Amino acid sequence: MTEMETVSRLLHELWPLMRSLTGDGVRQTHAKLSDVVPLDTFEIPSGTEVFDWTVPDEWRFKEAYVIDPNGNRILDASVNTLHLVNYSMPFSGTVSLDELKEHLYTLPDQPNAIPYVTSYYTRRWGFCLSHNMLSTLPEGQYSVVVDTEFLNGGMTLSEIVLPGDSEKEVFFSTYTCHPSMANNELSGPLTASLLAQRLSNRKKRRYTYRFVFVPETIGAIAYLHRKGEHLKKNMVAGYVVTCTGLDLPFTYQKSRQGDSAADRAAEFALEANGEPFNVRDFVPFGSDERQYCSPGFNLPVGSLMRGPYNTYPEYHTSLDNLDMVTPANILKSVDAYEAICDTLEQNRTYLNLRPHCEPFLTKHNLYQTVNAATQRAQIQTILWLLNLSDSNHDLVAISKRSGTSLQELSEVATILSNASLLKQLD
Amino acid sequence: MTEMETVSRLLHELWPLMRSLTGDGVRQTHAKLSDVVPLDTFEIPSGTEVFDWTVPDEWRFKEAYVIDPNGNRILDASVNTLHLVNYSMPFSGTVSLDELKEHLYTLPDQPNAIPYVTSYYTRRWGFCLSHNMLSTLPEGQYSVVVDTEFLNGGMTLSEIVLPGDSEKEVFFSTYTCHPSMANNELSGPLTASLLAQRLSNRKKRRYTYRFVFVPETIGAIAYLHRKGEHLKKNMVAGYVVTCTGLDLPFTYQKSRQGDSAADRAAEFALEANGEPFNVRDFVPFGSDERQYCSPGFNLPVGSLMRGPYNTYPEYHTSLDNLDMVTPANILKSVDAYEAICDTLEQNRTYLNLRPHCEPFLTKHNLYQTVNAATQRAQIQTILWLLNLSDSNHDLVAISKRSGTSLQELSEVATILSNASLLKQLD
Amino acid sequence: MTEMETVSRLLHELWPLMRSLTGDGVRQTHAKLSDVVPLDTFEIPSGTEVFDWTVPDEWRFKEAYVIDPNGNRILDASVNTLHLVNYSMPFSGTVSLDELKEHLYTLPDQPNAIPYVTSYYTRRWGFCLSHNMLSTLPEGQYSVVVDTEFLNGGMTLSEIVLPGDSEKEVFFSTYTCHPSMANNELSGPLTASLLAQRLSNRKKRRYTYRFVFVPETIGAIAYLHRKGEHLKKNMVAGYVVTCTGLDLPFTYQKSRQGDSAADRAAEFALEANGEPFNVRDFVPFGSDERQYCSPGFNLPVGSLMRGPYNTYPEYHTSLDNLDMVTPANILKSVDAYEAICDTLEQNRTYLNLRPHCEPFLTKHNLYQTVNAATQRAQIQTILWLLNLSDSNHDLVAISKRSGTSLQELSEVATILSNASLLKQLD
Repeated sequence: MTEMETVSRLLHELWPLMRSLTGDGVRQTHAKLSDVVPLDTFEIPSGTEVFDWTVPDEWRFKEAYVIDPNGNRILDASVNTLHLVNYSMPFSGTVSLDELKEHLYTLPDQPNAIPYVTSYYTRRWGFCLSHNMLSTLPEGQYSVVVDTEFLNGGMTLSEIVLPGDSEKEVFFSTYTCHPSMANNELSGPLTASLLAQRLSNRKKRRYTYRFVFVPETIGAIAYLHRKGEHLKKNMVAGYVVTCTGLDLPFTYQKSRQGDSAADRAAEFALEANGEPFNVRDFVPFGSDERQYCSPGFNLPVGSLMRGPYNTYPEYHTSLDNLDMVTPANILKSVDAYEAICDTLEQNRTYLNLRPHCEPFLTKHNLYQTVNAATQRAQIQTILWLLNLSDSNHDLVAISKRSGTSLQELSEVATILSNASLLKQLD
Repeated sequence: MTEMETVSRLLHELWPLMRSLTGDGVRQTHAKLSDVVPLDTFEIPSGTEVFDWTVPDEWRFKEAYVIDPNGNRILDASVNTLHLVNYSMPFSGTVSLDELKEHLYTLPDQPNAIPYVTSYYTRRWGFCLSHNMLSTLPEGQYSVVVDTEFLNGGMTLSEIVLPGDSEKEVFFSTYTCHPSMANNELSGPLTASLLAQRLSNRKKRRYTYRFVFVPETIGAIAYLHRKGEHLKKNMVAGYVVTCTGLDLPFTYQKSRQGDSAADRAAEFALEANGEPFNVRDFVPFGSDERQYCSPGFNLPVGSLMRGPYNTYPEYHTSLDNLDMVTPANILKSVDAYEAICDTLEQNRTYLNLRPHCEPFLTKHNLYQTVNAATQRAQIQTILWLLNLSDSNHDLVAISKRSGTSLQELSEVATILSNASLLKQLD
Repeated sequence: MTEMETVSRLLHELWPLMRSLTGDGVRQTHAKLSDVVPLDTFEIPSGTEVFDWTVPDEWRFKEAYVIDPNGNRILDASVNTLHLVNYSMPFSGTVSLDELKEHLYTLPDQPNAIPYVTSYYTRRWGFCLSHNMLSTLPEGQYSVVVDTEFLNGGMTLSEIVLPGDSEKEVFFSTYTCHPSMANNELSGPLTASLLAQRLSNRKKRRYTYRFVFVPETIGAIAYLHRKGEHLKKNMVAGYVVTCTGLDLPFTYQKSRQGDSAADRAAEFALEANGEPFNVRDFVPFGSDERQYCSPGFNLPVGSLMRGPYNTYPEYHTSLDNLDMVTPANILKSVDAYEAICDTLEQNRTYLNLRPHCEPFLTKHNLYQTVNAATQRAQIQTILWLLNLSDSNHDLVAISKRSGTSLQELSEVATILSNASLLKQLD
């Protein structure tokens, strides 16, 4: 199966699942993602204290719908998961239209859209529908069925760790708690899965790669509670993978540090790519970088997006659907994240072992016998590497200064290392 | 009496006094300013050595005028104090027009203006007049009376200290040595007095506020000789209050340090105000910041002006008069200086006490039940405060980063402190 | 003899000499330059190891030419030294046109120009000619004479050291290995010689001045091998003097450090001069700054040029001749380098000995009795010097801040030092 087919199949299989902070919808989602790369899935018990938070009761969803006065089944969550307010408490009974309306949510400004509403920490039940549909509801008695249950279960998290030559890690976090929406969020876990698959197929990885799949906020907090100190010690660069599916220019949101290795690699890779892109500063009300970049951790975690949350009108509604998000869009994001990984893998720091004057390149057989134009460029690359390899300049810095690609610098640096003129640091 | 009435009355009462480096004109001026806020006045004896300088003899002025050949009393200092060269030595006698002219000063380029001339450190006598009047003086004998006296007296300085919760001080210095001119200088001591009055009426002051009223240069030097080490130890921010009376945009002159707390607060308050303003760098030939910012002290002293000395044509002439300087202009400067004080008072630094991930705001009752738009903004303010309160960002920095007003940040920070999520530093 | 006559005579006398890395052409060149200032000439034996390099065999040139099938002597190095590939191995024999062509070098894109070709580290022989001439060579047998010899001799270097009050050195390096070309290179050693002559005529030098004349690359490397540690210890500022002869705006190439004393002085002097100029960053493939700025030395060595190598079409061809480079052009470069020396000589750092408040200038007789306009400017100069002489600002910094010329600051600083208000540091 091609990557395109994998993404296409998963978009459709994952679409109807009732994802939430907890529950079988999440478990099924992680199981399907495990077809792409094998995830290590684990549960954190309800009631576990994680920093200032408590893991909530598990929410079990069976079915939810309303029977209108004419006997028609409407607002059926099996038709669209968004119809049910996520984490609704159980209810069964007959109510008047006025009573029902106290439990209905619409978007008057977007009358065609069903809103996405959650009620994680206040127990209530409710249904979401388009504002247009609301006006068509007839007077009369409505029969309501919300067959859900809260139980002392667990919260489902998954991860995959791809070991590399170094224990230093590149980190990716994505979330799997949103039901039937496409850019936010199916694009995120699919981008992460495909990227993990590609990296798992590599014969050689310099860094260890860690991918985590968690419910947003509480999941990231629980993960940090377990692994925060490990990440502080080992993380070279990290990214929150979300909103990667729209056909828009890339937006890179910097880590809180603002000039971390994550930021330098992402901006470098985007510049090398050549297409226009946006960069914005960290703000503390985005996605899970809120937790990773909280001041107690301050991890080097940025986020590369195509159509960030809150910036497109379909966000958090039923209009954020599979018409907007194509497999090709998602794979382009996989490419971009892979280019960042390549930048991190290639960005080394060298030390000139003969720092007094230039070495005599002829003696080291470093004058190639190809045509003059190529030779001249290669000699300049050699001279940049020798001159700036003083332990203060990595290859990204030398690339920016010299205009030579990272790939070319990396290859020539290997030649110079083999000639004992450079030594790789770190 | 309203502030407007106070300023208006004082402008007219202070106008005719023969101010100078020393003498009764200064004492009367300080006494009248004491009606606004009670000043602590003290004298430094003539002959006292202060750094490289010596406090000069006290100058006592009784009267000064000339009788022209026609018997008319002209150049009478009781009509305009500027007619007498300030610090003139005593003289009484009859001179020819030619002899008299050796003692006359005019401004040929501003023929309507009487210049302001001083002779502090060379003993001579002289009169100032408009160039137009000079050409009308008839030939003949002139009778000159300069009834002044030098004596071993004192130099008059005043100050008021408004204690605050902290011994750290905000400092204001203004000068009272210029006779009948309005922008430079009556605007300065009036602005300082009114500001002191407002601050003295406050029930709570975080900082101690110190206002000093001194003759320019020698007064500031004498004050620094007494209190320089105290100021070095305690001054948070300081300002030279002068030239605050013209109907022009504000000009803020930075302290020599260039990025001191004084500069940050002044520029922040001016930006928050929203009106256009100018900022200029410190230069060592302005007013008393020359002394406060001399390299041995290098205090954080800037100056907020409206129509700085040397930049308007009426400067140091009889045209710098009460037509140009209105009480409303002066009170606008009081407002601006008070906004700077508010900035300093409100600009605190906090430490996030739960720095690992966001706290669970619901648990701390920090989700208000007001309408969503307001709540969203307040939540963002909370998140900015929590995220950036790492001891490296004060509220001014968080305000610049977040676009939230200092007032809003200050209020929310207090809420978060009460919830034990933040702790105030310093 | 005027400077103009000296430069003119030397341009013509040095033009025909067969300069190279080594040999009598270099020795004769240095001997002629010694007429301007007496150079201390020394030899480094062939085979000496200098860092990664080995000093090559000495190349002795007697004559080189070709006899064409019609008996005409062509490509005669005594007509133009560029006809012979520099460092050609000896050869004598008769060859066909096709065989000869394997040893001929032309520039098809510049058909009128004879290229400059060297073969220092590969033993071969060859001739250079214009592409136009190549097409006129008839078929037939050619008699070739390359009367050269490699021997275990030496490489010729020269220097002159002009002692100053301080052991700290200002350094100039120029090269003398290019045969008959004018901008690159005769302009360089002539500019250096004339500058050395001017400085040697000065009665007082604050700094020691060192001028070195070396073959490019291997000469600079050999010099650094001998004197590198001395230069690291003593060099205040250095410059590679090359390509100073074209009638173009100055281009200053910064040292690798980018903000060294060499860079500050050069940019300051160029700004003070007022003519437009260019500044460019260090690149590791220019001239001998490649060696001086290698990371093991990282000396403060920049280069001031008029028409840098590689940027003009006549570079490294017979068209880089005396039509392009006039004595006036060269002397303008001498002027510019001398202005840099003046900047370095005048740029001192002072400490205010009365840093608390301004001193009482009247007491120190620092109020001059000249006209008011001049006095005001001088007082401002005094106040700038007193205020910024806190050991962190040198005169160049004070000049930039105040807009006062270095000359004026230097004179006033001397007055203030004599008045015991300033003390010169370093």
